Amino acid sequence: MFFASDNSGPAHPKVMEALMRANEGYRFGYGADAEMDRVRDMIRELFEAPEAAVYLVSTGTAANSIALATLAEPWQTIFCTKLSHINEDECNAPEFYSGAKLTLVGDENAKMTPTTLRAAIEDEETRGVHGPQRGPVSITQVTEKGTVYTQGELKALTAVAKEFGLTTHLDGARFANAIVSLGCTPAEMTWKAGIDCVCFGGTKNGLMGVEAVIFFDPKHAWEFELRRKRGAHLSSKHRYLSAQMEAYLTDDLWLELATSANAAGQRLAEGLLGSNAVTFPYEPEANLMFFDAPRGVHKKLQAAGAEYYVMGSLEGGDDDLVTGRLVCDWSVGSDGVDEFLAALKA
Amino acid sequence: MFFASDNSGPAHPKVMEALMRANEGYRFGYGADAEMDRVRDMIRELFEAPEAAVYLVSTGTAANSIALATLAEPWQTIFCTKLSHINEDECNAPEFYSGAKLTLVGDENAKMTPTTLRAAIEDEETRGVHGPQRGPVSITQVTEKGTVYTQGELKALTAVAKEFGLTTHLDGARFANAIVSLGCTPAEMTWKAGIDCVCFGGTKNGLMGVEAVIFFDPKHAWEFELRRKRGAHLSSKHRYLSAQMEAYLTDDLWLELATSANAAGQRLAEGLLGSNAVTFPYEPEANLMFFDAPRGVHKKLQAAGAEYYVMGSLEGGDDDLVTGRLVCDWSVGSDGVDEFLAALKA
Amino acid sequence: MFFASDNSGPAHPKVMEALMRANEGYRFGYGADAEMDRVRDMIRELFEAPEAAVYLVSTGTAANSIALATLAEPWQTIFCTKLSHINEDECNAPEFYSGAKLTLVGDENAKMTPTTLRAAIEDEETRGVHGPQRGPVSITQVTEKGTVYTQGELKALTAVAKEFGLTTHLDGARFANAIVSLGCTPAEMTWKAGIDCVCFGGTKNGLMGVEAVIFFDPKHAWEFELRRKRGAHLSSKHRYLSAQMEAYLTDDLWLELATSANAAGQRLAEGLLGSNAVTFPYEPEANLMFFDAPRGVHKKLQAAGAEYYVMGSLEGGDDDLVTGRLVCDWSVGSDGVDEFLAALKA
Amino acid sequence: MFFASDNSGPAHPKVMEALMRANEGYRFGYGADAEMDRVRDMIRELFEAPEAAVYLVSTGTAANSIALATLAEPWQTIFCTKLSHINEDECNAPEFYSGAKLTLVGDENAKMTPTTLRAAIEDEETRGVHGPQRGPVSITQVTEKGTVYTQGELKALTAVAKEFGLTTHLDGARFANAIVSLGCTPAEMTWKAGIDCVCFGGTKNGLMGVEAVIFFDPKHAWEFELRRKRGAHLSSKHRYLSAQMEAYLTDDLWLELATSANAAGQRLAEGLLGSNAVTFPYEPEANLMFFDAPRGVHKKLQAAGAEYYVMGSLEGGDDDLVTGRLVCDWSVGSDGVDEFLAALKA
Repeated sequence: MFFASDNSGPAHPKVMEALMRANEGYRFGYGADAEMDRVRDMIRELFEAPEAAVYLVSTGTAANSIALATLAEPWQTIFCTKLSHINEDECNAPEFYSGAKLTLVGDENAKMTPTTLRAAIEDEETRGVHGPQRGPVSITQVTEKGTVYTQGELKALTAVAKEFGLTTHLDGARFANAIVSLGCTPAEMTWKAGIDCVCFGGTKNGLMGVEAVIFFDPKHAWEFELRRKRGAHLSSKHRYLSAQMEAYLTDDLWLELATSANAAGQRLAEGLLGSNAVTFPYEPEANLMFFDAPRGVHKKLQAAGAEYYVMGSLEGGDDDLVTGRLVCDWSVGSDGVDEFLAALKA
Repeated sequence: MFFASDNSGPAHPKVMEALMRANEGYRFGYGADAEMDRVRDMIRELFEAPEAAVYLVSTGTAANSIALATLAEPWQTIFCTKLSHINEDECNAPEFYSGAKLTLVGDENAKMTPTTLRAAIEDEETRGVHGPQRGPVSITQVTEKGTVYTQGELKALTAVAKEFGLTTHLDGARFANAIVSLGCTPAEMTWKAGIDCVCFGGTKNGLMGVEAVIFFDPKHAWEFELRRKRGAHLSSKHRYLSAQMEAYLTDDLWLELATSANAAGQRLAEGLLGSNAVTFPYEPEANLMFFDAPRGVHKKLQAAGAEYYVMGSLEGGDDDLVTGRLVCDWSVGSDGVDEFLAALKA
Repeated sequence: MFFASDNSGPAHPKVMEALMRANEGYRFGYGADAEMDRVRDMIRELFEAPEAAVYLVSTGTAANSIALATLAEPWQTIFCTKLSHINEDECNAPEFYSGAKLTLVGDENAKMTPTTLRAAIEDEETRGVHGPQRGPVSITQVTEKGTVYTQGELKALTAVAKEFGLTTHLDGARFANAIVSLGCTPAEMTWKAGIDCVCFGGTKNGLMGVEAVIFFDPKHAWEFELRRKRGAHLSSKHRYLSAQMEAYLTDDLWLELATSANAAGQRLAEGLLGSNAVTFPYEPEANLMFFDAPRGVHKKLQAAGAEYYVMGSLEGGDDDLVTGRLVCDWSVGSDGVDEFLAALKA
Repeated sequence: MFFASDNSGPAHPKVMEALMRANEGYRFGYGADAEMDRVRDMIRELFEAPEAAVYLVSTGTAANSIALATLAEPWQTIFCTKLSHINEDECNAPEFYSGAKLTLVGDENAKMTPTTLRAAIEDEETRGVHGPQRGPVSITQVTEKGTVYTQGELKALTAVAKEFGLTTHLDGARFANAIVSLGCTPAEMTWKAGIDCVCFGGTKNGLMGVEAVIFFDPKHAWEFELRRKRGAHLSSKHRYLSAQMEAYLTDDLWLELATSANAAGQRLAEGLLGSNAVTFPYEPEANLMFFDAPRGVHKKLQAAGAEYYVMGSLEGGDDDLVTGRLVCDWSVGSDGVDEFLAALKA
């Protein structure tokens, strides 16, 4: 019963097989491997973006930080929600790479809205050279709370950004889960919705550790390459990143895995709701969810061996409401979910 | 005939098997995996340093840059040779991470000497708050030219550093090759020789991409962890780094692979010398070497399919001396070397 | 009728005379001038802090940024209000110098409270190496809205900071105005209230451009000196900074000027209140104030030659409420205030 | 007998008078003062550059660092000599502001040559994304050793830079002294010789502390303004910088002061040469010079009250050659020089 994170489960066997295959023979390093040529083509085709610049790095924080550093100037501010990974979970990496600061946009259901985004942008306006200048807008899809922006919501946000001449970045650490949730194409969720740059995550969805950074405008390519190297994120034996991503893209493995994770998430959410022991502060729309339950429930679940994060202490009265976070990775399956739900009922 | 780099060959099968094993089941992320606990113990034992702080990152540039940022202050200067990887091949990453600058120390046979190091340190002395302050000394072992510092040479250099109160860093991207070349222990080549921090490389010696950073004084531990995270180099699915390193350390695989690479290098060097077509600007002491040969020789070799770097153009008169670089990885073997030497003779 | 800023008026004649005197003969540069020796002694005496480290820089942003960089680590976050100068008016300088980010603390009457500060600090706690680490607390006194923390309020805030082991910084760009407002001593408003580092402003109170940075714990001295030089803020002809500060401290000129500015502010606030045309979103407690008035009132005032900032457009209906900012410098005097109030009544 | 530095003497009385005049009445801050409008026009006219972007800062290190940060990208390297102020005397400020590193170009008579510059540039070429990319060339005029580039030398250097598409920066902390030495116009020594950006120094030549930064291509203007603010170098009461610069430019005061300083330098150099006690490691061509003399000579001079820097210890045998540095500021005059020469003879 491991619901602690989608970075806790194994990589998919096909990914491991691809690594094995890639391990044969010699390759030039630093991205000049044949696997990367194929990955670039596959991503351009998948995103219907034949000119896109495509790069791989090994962590999501690197993907976000180097992408944002390429989009932002050091005297600007990046617009994001308080809940975003770049604000809460990257230990100043986006600021370190970009020199920019972050301006926190109000959220509803863990999502920024055109109104809150506009308010935040307008608030950074009147100070000439004194205040930070407006920089890119960073949107997290799936949000850190498990909600998903609709295509319409994304378009409305990017429209506000464009109105002010700002670029847009999509933190897609759970990109695949969002696609499965929305049932749209990668192009529809990105450049057709006004997104300029995507971090297309693989690590949380069955890879060992690979994220693609995609710029739809290739003018950013060389700067990204230099910033990646300067950030020490250019892998010498790059084929091992490429091979993972190639396996991920082959035969829609990425969709298959996210479909599995989301289905588990849906089963879990329904079971939790049915239990009447639990409420959701945010609507569960993909593979992770937060739930409020009496402390006694958390104690029982954890005693039964369920691994997940509890936001607060397990010490105290059994009746106090405490929030927990559950994440389903591709491998948890309906059995894993049912085991959890059984423990909840027990 | 692939002598382009020791990042061109495959990872060792035992490493791949370890990855497969590590891929089973769930693990906590970010370094809290059981494999890492074992790795830490193994490295502490190997280096006879029970208190050492031990960390893994996925690139050599990250290892060097974050280590140096932990040792240096942003108003200091780091002493290294012009030829060092941190100066020539890391696109300002050490400066980006540390804020410090680099002061280039004169080299002989690609190695700094107590005399050149002292001169460089003393030259940075007389300006009070105006000049950069003296910071750590960074030594590359094996050097980028294929020479190896003796234990005595290392001790003499660290003695100069200590005289000025400076810490010392060993860029050990080819640590194993140096150990094999010297026939000493890891402790003898590091803390017993006055080294404070080591980057213990695995990537160039049969891993997919893992380097350990070792501080003999654990006071640096927490700062390193924060700098690693801020640099986006904390791997979420950390077990895959740990597993590689565990395989590397098990049954002295690291030594076995370096022994193979160095043997190939020795065989290659002897063959080149015996050919009378070639001279060495630096003494080949490990698994890589530079050689001067008439352009015609390079043309012939490359036409025969030998892959390696030529420092300069292949266009021009056949008799001009041109420098080439040959690197033997663990997998090239005596057959690979002999094929190259045959092409040279042909 | 110049109420645009306290950086708009002239320097006090005694300051100019001191510059003239300091201009005679030769001096060693970079802070080794005799004037600086006297300034250091005077500030230590004024603050009853015989061990304090004392430095001068030429801008308030430099004072804040270099001070905070000395107190904060690059993986930390600095606690301040949204309204603070370091957040809104320094174009990322604090982040540039320190590498840290800013966490915005809720404010009431433009002041952080023990409750909002504690909430902000506690909110940055649960993420281990992932989130930014807690760093210094920066308090602005006089606030950017013209309110003044009482001694008790300062003590309560620093108590919260100390509880978490955090250092405290006072942005005292209007330090003198706060002292006059509170009627306490510099020691009482700083180290006796738990403040670790003060930016003691002179520029807004009759100097040409000098701010003192004071660390009550001298361990920060050398780091500050190096950061100041690295930031290009070490003045070569330092005597001209020292001379201004010496004049400022001599015969309590700094208090005399702030008393004049605050008296004008008080007269202006009373006049505005008496006019019934105006309301105050924040209580005016020193020499600056914000006031809400119908747009028509602002138009009338500006047409009459009053110079001040209006937060919003002057185009639109005359009856809409628009906010204006008025700042009294030491030189505006009661005549200046009365002229403004007459224009308001006209 | 004060020859320690050209930042040791007084500001010129006309500068102080200008400050007094500028101190009357109110002004908008941050560069929106009427004095700055005049300064901008005067500099554009002086440099025959009607489109130039012109800014003031208060230190030479700030001028250099912010200018170079505007010209360089953080993954580049800046070409300069080892002796340059940006390398030796700015405590990493250029690196801090720009993120770039410095590549040291060989010097002859303290000047880079087309040959050494080309060699340094070509040496930074072959590493693709791995090495730092080539960035701006920074030339110091007058050099830190007191020599002066001829117009032809400047043109030859900038031609090399342009050949590689690199921009050029002139560190003109002693710009006026160089103009007097060469007898050419500001335009001839800058943009007509291929220079893109000039730091036009005033501090070492009779101002309290003002340097102008001039970009001949105004496209750099807004970026410079933001970098200046972010570096905490935008003066709020900017009129006091403008007023100094205005006085400097009025009636060619800048030339008058440099003529005086250079004449003193020439008189001093001739006297030293005539003494036969001294040799010059570099040809004295402006207002500063280095001289080698027996330690006993230095002891005698310093005992007689001469203030200047000695490169090395005064303890040791009287006959050892020791280097001293003498700088004549505008105020030292022939009497000051003669007093020194008399002490030398005594």
